[in-house]
Amino acid sequence: MVEPATDTKSAVRTVALLKDELDIVIPTIRNLDFLEMWRPFFEPYHLIIVQDGDPTKTIKVPDGFDYELYNRNDINKILGPKASCISFKDSACRCFGYMVSKKKYIFTIDDDCFVAKDPSGKAINALEQHIKNLLCPSTPFFFNTLYDPFREGADFVRGYPFSLREGVPTAVSHGLWLNIPDYDAPTQLVKPLERNTRYVDAVMTIPKGTLFPMCGMNLAFHRELIGPAMYFGLMGDGQPIGRYDDMWAGWCIKVICDHLGLGVKTGLPYIYHSKASNPFVNLRKEYKGIFWQEEIIPFFQAVSLPKDCTTVQKCYIELAKMVKDKLGKIDPYFDKLADAMVTWIDAWDELNPTGAANKGKKA
Amino acid sequence: MVEPATDTKSAVRTVALLKDELDIVIPTIRNLDFLEMWRPFFEPYHLIIVQDGDPTKTIKVPDGFDYELYNRNDINKILGPKASCISFKDSACRCFGYMVSKKKYIFTIDDDCFVAKDPSGKAINALEQHIKNLLCPSTPFFFNTLYDPFREGADFVRGYPFSLREGVPTAVSHGLWLNIPDYDAPTQLVKPLERNTRYVDAVMTIPKGTLFPMCGMNLAFHRELIGPAMYFGLMGDGQPIGRYDDMWAGWCIKVICDHLGLGVKTGLPYIYHSKASNPFVNLRKEYKGIFWQEEIIPFFQAVSLPKDCTTVQKCYIELAKMVKDKLGKIDPYFDKLADAMVTWIDAWDELNPTGAANKGKKA
Repeated sequence: MVEPATDTKSAVRTVALLKDELDIVIPTIRNLDFLEMWRPFFEPYHLIIVQDGDPTKTIKVPDGFDYELYNRNDINKILGPKASCISFKDSACRCFGYMVSKKKYIFTIDDDCFVAKDPSGKAINALEQHIKNLLCPSTPFFFNTLYDPFREGADFVRGYPFSLREGVPTAVSHGLWLNIPDYDAPTQLVKPLERNTRYVDAVMTIPKGTLFPMCGMNLAFHRELIGPAMYFGLMGDGQPIGRYDDMWAGWCIKVICDHLGLGVKTGLPYIYHSKASNPFVNLRKEYKGIFWQEEIIPFFQAVSLPKDCTTVQKCYIELAKMVKDKLGKIDPYFDKLADAMVTWIDAWDELNPTGAANKGKKA
Repeated sequence: MVEPATDTKSAVRTVALLKDELDIVIPTIRNLDFLEMWRPFFEPYHLIIVQDGDPTKTIKVPDGFDYELYNRNDINKILGPKASCISFKDSACRCFGYMVSKKKYIFTIDDDCFVAKDPSGKAINALEQHIKNLLCPSTPFFFNTLYDPFREGADFVRGYPFSLREGVPTAVSHGLWLNIPDYDAPTQLVKPLERNTRYVDAVMTIPKGTLFPMCGMNLAFHRELIGPAMYFGLMGDGQPIGRYDDMWAGWCIKVICDHLGLGVKTGLPYIYHSKASNPFVNLRKEYKGIFWQEEIIPFFQAVSLPKDCTTVQKCYIELAKMVKDKLGKIDPYFDKLADAMVTWIDAWDELNPTGAANKGKKA
């Protein structure tokens, strides 16, 4: 049985890397008691809390954390009519936090995720590992059999082309989960007792041309490089689908990273995922996605972006057109989604006028 | 410091999987004392020893092993003029063993590879893990973030398309190395003391469309599915290049597996690689490969086999034509190699008349 790290108070506080360049985004509907366990690792950072559901409810944040909190009223006020692109009653609302941040990097985590232990029993500083992943290059063009070649004690193996050893900038770091694995509703129903107890000590680049299921539970990214593509779509209230927010973002960012020559990593760090969501509720949210994805994935596998798409925004607008054109026939939902993708970029650019991030201005 | 398992005599002998369907191929120039350590795991299997170099030398094989041994005179006698496709004074000669085997599966290992220990200290039965890898499907069309979805305690994660969960047959299992990593000469020279001590507890499918550096030191494959493409090229005596035998085979098998819908896995099992080869000698062997690979890899990345190539042999002959056509201009060596690829297929088909493997006939 795998257990969370409970005694993190005694964890050695290391230097908080990129303290002024990274925001932690947390979507929630409840008091953020889970932050207590993360205190030694998160306290030096700024939090952006996106409160989902009833905006009149008060969310308690443990003392000592530096945060800003946005509820639905705030989102509506800031974005006006463009707030329609931000999901309601779904953790997809977290992407509003990506938009209002002015930092270079984002780490996002769910409020049912606790500190995991490595095989030696040491509490894992997930954020520190994500930052290491983001600061070190990716290798999407050729597979390295000893995993991350930039890690201490590892390198490129014999036969790895020397021209590719510089790597490319890393845009996304996808972390994993011990205890409750991120399964879909059918798998949850079939294997209710399955727990992930295997600690795989590796970080790897997902090769160019390969799609992956990106989970938003424990995710970090380089906001300046890929932020405008990290849109979590239309989910939850009033939408025919849920639990595909992070998947949608994952498909979009991957084809755009491939096009722009950016890297996506997966593997370490692990967090401890404490409780499985209700598989019956999940099934209701997911069932359309389960058959839609059979067409969506071949669509994304076939995406080829034109050469003149040289920015994330241009890529994303082009992708929105393709979604309308090719996926619109599956269901009218995709027309709405394509429109929302355009609205999202409009809103992003409004809150992030060119160069604002570099100048450190608040929108 | 990582150490080999020295007390394998006490290792629990488990059921020898596929005992009558797998040959172990070992290329060597010395007495096979290293087999003592492998005895509990290899003794139930048949060995094919390919003796490299001076055929008058006697290679000693520890008592109790069931083996056949071929030296250069045997190879010349069996293949006649076609023996020209089998390298001399290079471990590339091992592929002769693949050709004379009549079994469904091959495991090949170098004679400087010993039994490694897992993190709990247990001796790793590398062959057993390879067989598990080969008997369970691969998933080349979409990335599973929890690694091998067929492993106990794991599954496909949320967002993995259900239509792809059956997987495809696995053709190749590429194992790794603790202690001396498989580095090229420049890396050996720069990092003479680097040792691989990280045990990564994972097996994964290399995605479709992604090439990898295949090392022949610890490798298993499904001979009936991919055998005719496992040609280790022209290396060693009289050739301008060495140490690219397994790389060549790896590029060829990968594009053919991708074309035929077969899987290639990498990761577990680890062996303990005991000693680094001489980096100065290696540099002499490798230096042409180091710059040639900068053109060879883009060539393989661009290979597209015609639809009517429905067998490994047809694919391989087509690939030989492409090699002659596209790589011949790099160096006349590639003309010779392309011819040798055709000779290899001729020889393979001669020793393996259709259906022979199924009928269990010895050539």
